Amino acid sequence: MGSTFGSVFRIATWGESHGGGIGVVVDGCPPRLPLGVEDLQRDLDRRRPGQSHLTTQRDEADQAEILSGVFEGRTLGSPIAVLVRNADARPEAYEHLKEVYRPSHADFSYQAKYGIRNWQGGGRASARETVGRVAAGAIARRLLAEVCGVEVVAWVSRVHNLGSDVNPATVTSDAVDAHPTRCPDPQAAGAIETAIEAARGDGNSLGGIVTCVARGMPTGLGDPVFDRLEADLAKAMLSLPAVKGFDIGSGFDAVAMTGREHNDPFVPGDDGPTTGSNRSGGVQGGISNGADVIFRVAFKPTATITSAQETVDTDNQAVTLEARGRHDPCVLPRAVPMVEAMALLVLADHWLRQRMVEVLAD
Amino acid sequence: MGSTFGSVFRIATWGESHGGGIGVVVDGCPPRLPLGVEDLQRDLDRRRPGQSHLTTQRDEADQAEILSGVFEGRTLGSPIAVLVRNADARPEAYEHLKEVYRPSHADFSYQAKYGIRNWQGGGRASARETVGRVAAGAIARRLLAEVCGVEVVAWVSRVHNLGSDVNPATVTSDAVDAHPTRCPDPQAAGAIETAIEAARGDGNSLGGIVTCVARGMPTGLGDPVFDRLEADLAKAMLSLPAVKGFDIGSGFDAVAMTGREHNDPFVPGDDGPTTGSNRSGGVQGGISNGADVIFRVAFKPTATITSAQETVDTDNQAVTLEARGRHDPCVLPRAVPMVEAMALLVLADHWLRQRMVEVLAD
Amino acid sequence: MGSTFGSVFRIATWGESHGGGIGVVVDGCPPRLPLGVEDLQRDLDRRRPGQSHLTTQRDEADQAEILSGVFEGRTLGSPIAVLVRNADARPEAYEHLKEVYRPSHADFSYQAKYGIRNWQGGGRASARETVGRVAAGAIARRLLAEVCGVEVVAWVSRVHNLGSDVNPATVTSDAVDAHPTRCPDPQAAGAIETAIEAARGDGNSLGGIVTCVARGMPTGLGDPVFDRLEADLAKAMLSLPAVKGFDIGSGFDAVAMTGREHNDPFVPGDDGPTTGSNRSGGVQGGISNGADVIFRVAFKPTATITSAQETVDTDNQAVTLEARGRHDPCVLPRAVPMVEAMALLVLADHWLRQRMVEVLAD
Amino acid sequence: MGSTFGSVFRIATWGESHGGGIGVVVDGCPPRLPLGVEDLQRDLDRRRPGQSHLTTQRDEADQAEILSGVFEGRTLGSPIAVLVRNADARPEAYEHLKEVYRPSHADFSYQAKYGIRNWQGGGRASARETVGRVAAGAIARRLLAEVCGVEVVAWVSRVHNLGSDVNPATVTSDAVDAHPTRCPDPQAAGAIETAIEAARGDGNSLGGIVTCVARGMPTGLGDPVFDRLEADLAKAMLSLPAVKGFDIGSGFDAVAMTGREHNDPFVPGDDGPTTGSNRSGGVQGGISNGADVIFRVAFKPTATITSAQETVDTDNQAVTLEARGRHDPCVLPRAVPMVEAMALLVLADHWLRQRMVEVLAD
Repeated sequence: MGSTFGSVFRIATWGESHGGGIGVVVDGCPPRLPLGVEDLQRDLDRRRPGQSHLTTQRDEADQAEILSGVFEGRTLGSPIAVLVRNADARPEAYEHLKEVYRPSHADFSYQAKYGIRNWQGGGRASARETVGRVAAGAIARRLLAEVCGVEVVAWVSRVHNLGSDVNPATVTSDAVDAHPTRCPDPQAAGAIETAIEAARGDGNSLGGIVTCVARGMPTGLGDPVFDRLEADLAKAMLSLPAVKGFDIGSGFDAVAMTGREHNDPFVPGDDGPTTGSNRSGGVQGGISNGADVIFRVAFKPTATITSAQETVDTDNQAVTLEARGRHDPCVLPRAVPMVEAMALLVLADHWLRQRMVEVLAD
Repeated sequence: MGSTFGSVFRIATWGESHGGGIGVVVDGCPPRLPLGVEDLQRDLDRRRPGQSHLTTQRDEADQAEILSGVFEGRTLGSPIAVLVRNADARPEAYEHLKEVYRPSHADFSYQAKYGIRNWQGGGRASARETVGRVAAGAIARRLLAEVCGVEVVAWVSRVHNLGSDVNPATVTSDAVDAHPTRCPDPQAAGAIETAIEAARGDGNSLGGIVTCVARGMPTGLGDPVFDRLEADLAKAMLSLPAVKGFDIGSGFDAVAMTGREHNDPFVPGDDGPTTGSNRSGGVQGGISNGADVIFRVAFKPTATITSAQETVDTDNQAVTLEARGRHDPCVLPRAVPMVEAMALLVLADHWLRQRMVEVLAD
Repeated sequence: MGSTFGSVFRIATWGESHGGGIGVVVDGCPPRLPLGVEDLQRDLDRRRPGQSHLTTQRDEADQAEILSGVFEGRTLGSPIAVLVRNADARPEAYEHLKEVYRPSHADFSYQAKYGIRNWQGGGRASARETVGRVAAGAIARRLLAEVCGVEVVAWVSRVHNLGSDVNPATVTSDAVDAHPTRCPDPQAAGAIETAIEAARGDGNSLGGIVTCVARGMPTGLGDPVFDRLEADLAKAMLSLPAVKGFDIGSGFDAVAMTGREHNDPFVPGDDGPTTGSNRSGGVQGGISNGADVIFRVAFKPTATITSAQETVDTDNQAVTLEARGRHDPCVLPRAVPMVEAMALLVLADHWLRQRMVEVLAD
Repeated sequence: MGSTFGSVFRIATWGESHGGGIGVVVDGCPPRLPLGVEDLQRDLDRRRPGQSHLTTQRDEADQAEILSGVFEGRTLGSPIAVLVRNADARPEAYEHLKEVYRPSHADFSYQAKYGIRNWQGGGRASARETVGRVAAGAIARRLLAEVCGVEVVAWVSRVHNLGSDVNPATVTSDAVDAHPTRCPDPQAAGAIETAIEAARGDGNSLGGIVTCVARGMPTGLGDPVFDRLEADLAKAMLSLPAVKGFDIGSGFDAVAMTGREHNDPFVPGDDGPTTGSNRSGGVQGGISNGADVIFRVAFKPTATITSAQETVDTDNQAVTLEARGRHDPCVLPRAVPMVEAMALLVLADHWLRQRMVEVLAD
């Protein structure tokens, strides 16, 4: 049951890195939404491996097929099934990982949990698993665009010790995609590119931060007390591979502020109160207040590195591992569409849930 | 539906700050667990207001009553309902907040979402709402102690700019509770106490960090891909009032490390592989690896402060607010049992879920 | 988790026959619904024991208290908790059932499942458990009346071999409640009353059928393929104590008809197609078609009878049981508000769900 | 969200009659279960159209492909995705149904709900939709065989006015499959075959009853109060196309019995109490008592018939319809594997849930 996400806009993803394919079933998308495979392909292309010299060299076109739920260009209200075949699978390349546990990878914990493990490319514990999420996120994006104009943009704001200067209020997807690092600050992007290449050359890897903003937010999204908007976003982000942290608005920086410094003053707006600052990150009490929702996601450096590491094998014996196979030296560039997808899924779910709240007159 | 948490150890909380009471229904607790109201009361006492000079002065004994699900000292397998009456409710003290939106509080967003708002003590958007969570968490604590010996301890590790020095491997609940700040580093505790008192005197408030550890962890807890242990913990923590961030293991610090620095080497252990370090925070690929689970929760400074603030009223007119009522100048001390409760609920849920995984022979 | 019902209008019931009380938490009721305890009390009074000479003589006023979720006469959108105290509990009257399994009662299966059993009045396996359902159903009734005018009426249509003649299109709640049997056909009601009294005098019990109609139905309720309206109604009804069967529209009678006889011809109506007959019972393909939803629920005779029966004790030894305590010789009269409540809960849930379907223009 | 079924052994089905295919994702199957496509194919072959002269002549091999979740012949614990391509789709054959509503079919209610409709072969409202259920049911069958030896057998016990004589305690799947009617009483089977052929020849259709038994039942399955075993079975069955009724054990016949006649006496058994009769149908208080679970499912005659019928078109104008396309004159023979599949899914779900109940010592 761990592969189902969402309460009313609900997705079930499936697939392993080297199995028959990978995909998703979206159950709960409203009918009559204009939708074509090209809506999905744009985001899948941004996620796919081999898209630049900074990513894994596994070559997957990741061509999606919509198997159900769409008729004559519009959704039917029935489940939308999406299939992406695995093309460039090379299980034999992982043979050397069959009896060894990579440090900080899921090899050991999967074996401990399930008593069985698909060692080919990590099986389910592979970034390839996110194909289904990104396809579903693209459907959520289309829905939100149609019903309320919410726009979600994520970008690489930091890699290792290299920060960037980006304005969340104005940054565009085009600017993000303009550089293979997906950092829309050109100067930082260049430095990050160099750092990632150096890490790869060194058999090492780098982590970083993806920042994400949702603009054009309606008020009222989020369901206290447990399904607060920030709680569902936090779960969504921590469910992505390699994520170690999440914060929203002021986040961890709030700790060092006093209430007087931190509180966002309300100011009269044209359509009701707005806030003069946005340390809240667009949520108060778990509910969107109309300001931009802005949050950060911390990614650790890729666990699979090619330099030698001490570890143990499946017989609990110490061994030295030099991992091969095709891996991203830094997951950040490809994580951008994943973060966007998960944010879109949460927002679509809550937008639909809010339809059930607004049914009686004030 | 936003007040239901957990998949198989499922709780439904209810109650407003100044209504008829507050409580929880726990649906899914296994039968035959020894349980008495004293198991709940210990944690409720740690959460209750008025317990020290550092908290709100609202005086609530928070005496719990178990209404169902327990028979002759053991659970029946049927739902456990817990009721705590509101005793020291003073709705009139909030009359001045009826037509004004407190900055960074949930007043405005609740009104925007629901079109109605209980302005008495924040209604549902009050720390009082967590009574039900803490009671349910105490049941989860009892269950985990009985079935697998997991122990969860949280503490205040930072308030504002005051850090502390605490060893997660050995810190005890007794040490945490020894000081009203719930910081088990005596030196830091003293400084924190002074800082909180100063903030209160100044009509201001402070934020901070609660760190939490789960020791004695079994391997295998967590359900990839969406219900990863860290994802469910993140949701649990971000669902608490005033929380702005969560990270696990190395967390945001992972960003500045390389893969070589960050990876936890596996080393042969007596009962199979263990890790030589724990930057993973006890989870790999969303599944517990047997190491301590350790995470941090960032709390913002309390929104309600007594010094004057600019804001707007319910007619969208600018006003100056000087909030009265009884508020915590720093939520951290009382947040400790809340964080523990949510962690315990997540762990109990996943421990039970793992029963359904381990059914076929290796 | 078995005590939670509904997907978006979700209830969690709790309580045993002789514990501290009985109740329900409703999570998902929209805000701003006018609601008072009197809305609940009307249905609770129709369910309560001791209301007539035909029911158990246990005397419970079943006075409800709304503990949360309602403010100044309207719902808040937060969970609505309802509490009914047990007043006339006499656990000692069940002492003789402590070590014996009543035939066809839940005594044995509860013990087998949970390894523990509250033998006082059946514990959770008591009609008393339905208090929470009926209270929640009353809230659903209020909601449906407000948002779409759906009206649900159930009645006793048969007891043992005594049928009745009732017009589902016009029968009223007043007519149903006019006779303690809750059979609105006066002639049949008299015969049924006599039969129930005779069964009680004989230490025996009787079963029967409750028929239920929902009038003023909107089209579009029900979510294929699993959450068909009739599927959710079937589950709701079979979840009531003593129910052995459910059918909708033509039901089991459809078996002996041909397609030509059975099909409901569509005829042009003022607001679109309607059906010239209603063998479908208001649902086609799992979705309401605007015609009245009409279904039947079969109840077995009460398991607990006072005449001697062969059975076994908790040591697996044969014994003869003469049950005492207070029992209904026929559950049908009190089952009427239970059936209505469950139907109302299903309809409210699906009405809300349909809000999420109707979001894009045709 | 209506296409998701099950709480912990959870399936999401997808697909329309004439889309890109049909399938299912099973989320929650335990790891290490031996499973191959042949396990699925056996049941799919029993469901597939064109298997005999009594069914629709649409010719589909219904060859399944397992896309994920199985590795080297055993399940991984990750989702199992199954795909069946539509081969013999002929959408053009349904062109004449594009603007007309078939009586008692889902055409109108789907249009009313979704505002859009795939008119090709009924779209989602087609028996073809059950492919995914049957594939998932086959996985549940394999699981139950492995973990507890439960065996589920269904058969056609009645078509129209033709009953049969079958012993639920001993009937075998082989006997059921020996005749194309799937009635294991040879004499009745012959008469049923003749009746179905006559109905087809007459442009008419027939309904009937499928009876189903689960043998080798453990005690303890079913979760009061809402997720009673019979409640979940009822929902499962009423979610199948063309089903109008469900009863369990004595079912509707219980109505005419007294408590003394109906109660199943307990008798001492080798492993604890058993019942001397089984009018309860294997469930008491919503929990299996170890006796065979036995229930009946009533199917209406197929809505689509080829003789002329009065109806209305999509412009609400009266028209006469003579339906073409390929349809079953009687769904009963192919309904047998569907009923078994749904029963197996419910049992597997509850068997797994019971793992979480039996965790503490008595």
